[in-house]
Amino acid sequence: MKQSVIPSAKMVVAACKSKGIRDIVISPGSRNAPLTLSFSKNTFFNCYSIVDERSAAFFALGMSQQQKRPVALVCTSGSALLNYYPAIAEAFYSTIPLIVISADRPPYKIDVGDGQTIRQDNVFQRHIGYSANLKLDVSHAVGRIERYAPYLLQTGQSKIERYNRKELNQAFNVAFMSKLPVHINVPFEEPLYDLEEGEHLDFNSADTKITSQEPLGFEEDLGSLKQLWRKAGKKMVLVGVNHPNTIERELIERLGNDASVVVFTETTSNLHHPNFFPSIDSIIFPIEKSEHQHKLFKELQPDILLTFGGLVVSKKVKAFLRNYTPKQHWHIDGMKALDTYFCLSKHFRTNPNAMLKILLSETDNSQSDYFKQWHQVKRNYERKRAAYLKQIGFSDFLVFDILLSTIPDKYQVHLANSSTVRYAQLFDMNPTLGVFCNRGTSGIDGSTSTAVGGAIYDSNPTVLISGDLSFFYDSNALWNSYLRKDFRIIIINNSGGGIFRILPGNDGSDTFETYFETVQSTNAYHLCKQFGLMYKSANDTTSLRDALHTFYDESDYPKVLEIFTPRKINDKILLGYFDFIS
Amino acid sequence: MKQSVIPSAKMVVAACKSKGIRDIVISPGSRNAPLTLSFSKNTFFNCYSIVDERSAAFFALGMSQQQKRPVALVCTSGSALLNYYPAIAEAFYSTIPLIVISADRPPYKIDVGDGQTIRQDNVFQRHIGYSANLKLDVSHAVGRIERYAPYLLQTGQSKIERYNRKELNQAFNVAFMSKLPVHINVPFEEPLYDLEEGEHLDFNSADTKITSQEPLGFEEDLGSLKQLWRKAGKKMVLVGVNHPNTIERELIERLGNDASVVVFTETTSNLHHPNFFPSIDSIIFPIEKSEHQHKLFKELQPDILLTFGGLVVSKKVKAFLRNYTPKQHWHIDGMKALDTYFCLSKHFRTNPNAMLKILLSETDNSQSDYFKQWHQVKRNYERKRAAYLKQIGFSDFLVFDILLSTIPDKYQVHLANSSTVRYAQLFDMNPTLGVFCNRGTSGIDGSTSTAVGGAIYDSNPTVLISGDLSFFYDSNALWNSYLRKDFRIIIINNSGGGIFRILPGNDGSDTFETYFETVQSTNAYHLCKQFGLMYKSANDTTSLRDALHTFYDESDYPKVLEIFTPRKINDKILLGYFDFIS
Repeated sequence: MKQSVIPSAKMVVAACKSKGIRDIVISPGSRNAPLTLSFSKNTFFNCYSIVDERSAAFFALGMSQQQKRPVALVCTSGSALLNYYPAIAEAFYSTIPLIVISADRPPYKIDVGDGQTIRQDNVFQRHIGYSANLKLDVSHAVGRIERYAPYLLQTGQSKIERYNRKELNQAFNVAFMSKLPVHINVPFEEPLYDLEEGEHLDFNSADTKITSQEPLGFEEDLGSLKQLWRKAGKKMVLVGVNHPNTIERELIERLGNDASVVVFTETTSNLHHPNFFPSIDSIIFPIEKSEHQHKLFKELQPDILLTFGGLVVSKKVKAFLRNYTPKQHWHIDGMKALDTYFCLSKHFRTNPNAMLKILLSETDNSQSDYFKQWHQVKRNYERKRAAYLKQIGFSDFLVFDILLSTIPDKYQVHLANSSTVRYAQLFDMNPTLGVFCNRGTSGIDGSTSTAVGGAIYDSNPTVLISGDLSFFYDSNALWNSYLRKDFRIIIINNSGGGIFRILPGNDGSDTFETYFETVQSTNAYHLCKQFGLMYKSANDTTSLRDALHTFYDESDYPKVLEIFTPRKINDKILLGYFDFIS
Repeated sequence: MKQSVIPSAKMVVAACKSKGIRDIVISPGSRNAPLTLSFSKNTFFNCYSIVDERSAAFFALGMSQQQKRPVALVCTSGSALLNYYPAIAEAFYSTIPLIVISADRPPYKIDVGDGQTIRQDNVFQRHIGYSANLKLDVSHAVGRIERYAPYLLQTGQSKIERYNRKELNQAFNVAFMSKLPVHINVPFEEPLYDLEEGEHLDFNSADTKITSQEPLGFEEDLGSLKQLWRKAGKKMVLVGVNHPNTIERELIERLGNDASVVVFTETTSNLHHPNFFPSIDSIIFPIEKSEHQHKLFKELQPDILLTFGGLVVSKKVKAFLRNYTPKQHWHIDGMKALDTYFCLSKHFRTNPNAMLKILLSETDNSQSDYFKQWHQVKRNYERKRAAYLKQIGFSDFLVFDILLSTIPDKYQVHLANSSTVRYAQLFDMNPTLGVFCNRGTSGIDGSTSTAVGGAIYDSNPTVLISGDLSFFYDSNALWNSYLRKDFRIIIINNSGGGIFRILPGNDGSDTFETYFETVQSTNAYHLCKQFGLMYKSANDTTSLRDALHTFYDESDYPKVLEIFTPRKINDKILLGYFDFIS
């Protein structure tokens, strides 16, 4: 196997191999040639070539999210690297361990007017787990370095290698232990293309402490906490972004059958039980509209709020819990606990299964009617929702009901931000689906690329549901050769940012339509032609049902279904739903 | 005129108005509503709505570059802001004063799990002139702040306003005086949409020192420098990126008629004289290939190197000057001087006209044959280039000759990175054209958006010449309603990154074609259909000349001409050119 002759390139590649990082997403360039050559010529690695670095990074993020293992990105020097930033921030807040590897110029070429040269070291400082700024190898190009930057030779090659090894180890430690993205910046002196035979394996992976996913343990006064839990008549469990099939079935059952517990889930919680509450806004919105608002909120206000998982979508539940704060807020997570409701009292540094087992072992809840009361509210909105759906016209709301009930079992489902994921929350989700959404930063910038990357290795097919703005924003997601034939995209094209029509600023003015709703008339037909996807559109219930009839069938190309909905009616129907169930 | 009720929004808008910043490029969002509402409802401002922030920022950059005045960007909170970074880095290295205004959440909502929330303050730290991190207004939402973050009320509103005013002033000072991009981060508490009648004008613009573009003066021993200049037999003037019509005609004539001076220009120098040397690589490449390389380079080596303008494209001239360093390197620039050749000896902090006037007033150069010698070399390659063009087949090289000789007078010409600008350097340019290229970071990420923005106010039409990778990378540049009818795009589609075929790593392997050249088969036909541009293609000399015949004619829509060239031949013909002239 051939590899670059440059020591730091060899070391980075050997380190990735020793850590079992197999997936490498490469964007073209010349400065990164030592890395690109070594990765792509080594059969251990699965390399992917994606030109637009913004899309490449979200693609890698989707892949890492699904594989639950780090994925590496490789790019050339200059602004290329900066295009990774949106996905890095998403990875940072969603704890997805991207390994960002950038080639750089030698330090003496920074800020002297060379092309494709910026200040790359620590450039993601605000949103990165670790920045490993490797030092320039000097053994490789002594003559050149002696000429231009002799001071660099004062540090000998072996000292440089020790330093680089230490930095690499540190970066990998953070990636594996904290699940955060890390940045490894590697300066290269020319020549960049020289190869040698053989494989450099001299990376002592024992240097890196990779801990398992097991509970880290915690030192709490468990006895008194268990007692608190047991005694509390109103316990709310709120689950943020959570991978499918992570919580043990028995614990789910216990939670679902505890009279003192209400479990609020979101589409992205991937947690299902008939007694859970999957449409939080359908509970809270009617309370907000009620003349007994305060009384009802007091009744819903939990004694203990127990949370696990990542970020929560529902703004309503955040506002509620900030205003009617529970006496206790306990968060379970091996890494971190956010004080989302300004009342965090305990952080259990373990995984949810371990903690739930402890808490649910002794619960005595015979006295509470907390669940019962809210279950009736849920029954009520479910009944009314069904009635409402029968009386409304073609609209986003109706479309989501149809879409979510027709996705075949076991699909990987990606929801774009922000209307899409919010609408999806209002309907029941097929429990066999795995649902994902970039909620770390909740951006509209990379949903499609994330879905394309997430689909790569799944044993099941993937469908993305997206609004028109999100979809066109990330249209470069289609500009690569890795879309699976069974990849499906559903675009709900309401001619702009429909979510803005619901916000308080909608005064119906031109200003509003141009700068908020951003009315636009593009459709995806030509984009599909350009990138070789099959295209179908629908604009009413009949054509939608007709299109869905064969949409998930096997095909030789990925498919897009674009659904045109009436932008001036959508917002009224959505707001009407909340009125109707109130 | 209506405006937001929020004090910091009013202050930012008033500050922009008082500084004469008229162009505001807005991307949609809700957190930025106080800014969007105030800007868009005020007739002083020209507002533009662009969804993709990456494209929006390059659009603003193009506009600022052409107008030679700051342009403001406005976006919502979260990863939206990060998409600005590639353009900000380009602006930083090209000294273009973008005013980046981001809406942010209140500080107590950062890192607690709210959507679209990141660490925005100082996020561009490595490549920004100034980061003004404004403080949250408290007068506007006392109740909410009292509830969640009472400590914020300790600083009174008037103190906050004083602080914000000072920070804003500082940011504008940097933007106007240093021509650097600045970032103004403005946290807003809800409610965001409340408006009031009237216009807030309370921004004392006298606080901001805006200096003119006049020479800043310098304290040098001018007598001895003038003497050095006069005595030097070999003086090289090398001009980087430079705006058209900035150097006085008389000075150009004096430079062109000085026997001891060779003036090396680039396409982006926008400086023309029959005696200048506009194709640096055509001079240096043959020397590199000569068996008398060292002797010839010694003959070319200047005593004094005088530079002005921005970054230099030619790698060859940089390598030459680093190896054959002049005794003196003097750089003229009101702001900064980069030590590109590792031998910078003087920085004249003034404008080129002022300094050239001094230096060229007393020159006595009768003894030198420096110009004469290299002029003969130039004549030689010009003759040979003409002969070579007659014998080669259809290829990038031939296409550039045809394209550059057929652009109508006075067009604004944008060249994408990186093959395009490098090819263009090999041919003579019509002196009436203004030529631009994003050479600050030399990225391929925003050339089209820059050109679209640059075209907005020009009294002449604009043409962009781009490679296929650059063009598809930035295809969202077409996703707005601001393309002028007379906007023209020429895509040279050589099915990938043709420049990589010329680099040393081209071993013809699949690996090379996938990860370096990045062979791709997309064409722009459907993209044009999608965004309403007229499309024509060419794939040989006849069809190209035919297409060009009417390409620049008036039309109801912008036009694209896509030229397909043979990727496996292009590199051979280019390298063959250098052989032929050697």
